[in-house]
Amino acid sequence: MAETDTASIRADGGVRSIARAVEVLELFDVEHPTRSLRELVESTGLPKTTVVRLLATLDSLGLVADRGDSTYGLGAGFLRWVTLSQSLWEVSTEARRIMTQLVDTCGETVNIYIRQDLNRVSIAQVEGTTTVRSVVAIGVPYALATGAAAKILLTGAPDQVIRGLVEARPDLELEPLHREIASIREAGYSVTHGERELGASAVAAPIHSSDGRVIAALSASGPTSRFTADRVGRYVDAVTAAATEISAAGLGSVEVFL
Amino acid sequence: MAETDTASIRADGGVRSIARAVEVLELFDVEHPTRSLRELVESTGLPKTTVVRLLATLDSLGLVADRGDSTYGLGAGFLRWVTLSQSLWEVSTEARRIMTQLVDTCGETVNIYIRQDLNRVSIAQVEGTTTVRSVVAIGVPYALATGAAAKILLTGAPDQVIRGLVEARPDLELEPLHREIASIREAGYSVTHGERELGASAVAAPIHSSDGRVIAALSASGPTSRFTADRVGRYVDAVTAAATEISAAGLGSVEVFL
Repeated sequence: MAETDTASIRADGGVRSIARAVEVLELFDVEHPTRSLRELVESTGLPKTTVVRLLATLDSLGLVADRGDSTYGLGAGFLRWVTLSQSLWEVSTEARRIMTQLVDTCGETVNIYIRQDLNRVSIAQVEGTTTVRSVVAIGVPYALATGAAAKILLTGAPDQVIRGLVEARPDLELEPLHREIASIREAGYSVTHGERELGASAVAAPIHSSDGRVIAALSASGPTSRFTADRVGRYVDAVTAAATEISAAGLGSVEVFL
Repeated sequence: MAETDTASIRADGGVRSIARAVEVLELFDVEHPTRSLRELVESTGLPKTTVVRLLATLDSLGLVADRGDSTYGLGAGFLRWVTLSQSLWEVSTEARRIMTQLVDTCGETVNIYIRQDLNRVSIAQVEGTTTVRSVVAIGVPYALATGAAAKILLTGAPDQVIRGLVEARPDLELEPLHREIASIREAGYSVTHGERELGASAVAAPIHSSDGRVIAALSASGPTSRFTADRVGRYVDAVTAAATEISAAGLGSVEVFL
């Protein structure tokens, strides 16, 4: 799994066992449909007894399937929320088509991010065509403070969110952040190198609702080595054009949440 | 939501806040994509402060989306598990086709149940064609002790599960249950009336793996008024034939968990 910023958010997040349960469940992904008890203990850094108790609880709720021989998989209980979360959060076919075209143009991985509270979350992804590519997990909260998509989302965030972000992150200061956001709003796009992760670059542009609000960010991201000065201009053109197209086409039913 | 037996399991389920979080998340379904704080407080019976704290935690983990004005929806964080849980738990196209044919034949709602620990869970459903129909939620754990599908699953359960079930349910006794299971195994189907719920009837038959184990139960369920003596024979024929067909066709990738 790519590194996330959720751990820090969780530390003061109220009910710690819920955060721990999600931490365990996050370890199951398409590359790791099953996990051994040992892997779960090592990856979480939690005591074995804690992991065993969490697994027993999640098993009784149908969220984890005990396969015997100390290996576990994601439980059938998630089927409760598959249809609903898809119908709520899947972007329109048209938006996905435009994302795919953008991947064809620039070769980099394309994501649509939305803001959730003080995080950003990818709700749609089309993977890049090259071997070395940007990998972020769909649905996983990342920091709202770093990366091109985060900056774009901040241009649409209410002032209380920006203040909340500054309070939560001692490395941020309100005035410089306000200035940066204003500049990005004016430019209509954002380019970052190594902000979220060393060696990772991204170009992002805003997706607007029909009433003109910034509701999402379209980003193309990949290794900094490919985001060269002569290429980045083309990337910016392609990403802003695609974001404008998606704004016109509509993001789909997800817009009621944004 | 239909009544579930999860509440009783949860009471002694270890980490209570996880169970409470799932209880809140279960209140979101296709019929209720958003819920007001008031509805969540009333439906869970938890103190308002507890629900507010749970929602804040779930929000920070991306599992709940705060829409403002004290209404909440299921968060984009579930997208983490949509692809994986679908690829793990969706039944084969062929199995689904056979289920649809069975609905066409008998008109009742058809489910495929699997056993998870001491529960049964529907992993696939095709709804009946009549207005009054059986409604169970996909992915939600129900009791393994009651209902035709539960009885079929018990014919494939190891003895320790049957003993565990008897320990957990004071209304069950080991010897009569063993006798009942043996009879149902011999008959190859089960018919129940009002076991899980007053006025609800079901016919179920076993789905076998290629090595002959009972891995799932196929059930047709509906109002007892339609499960009349002259009809139930046809239902039994149709359900057992469809279960045999599904066993031959294979249940799909889900079989690795069963």
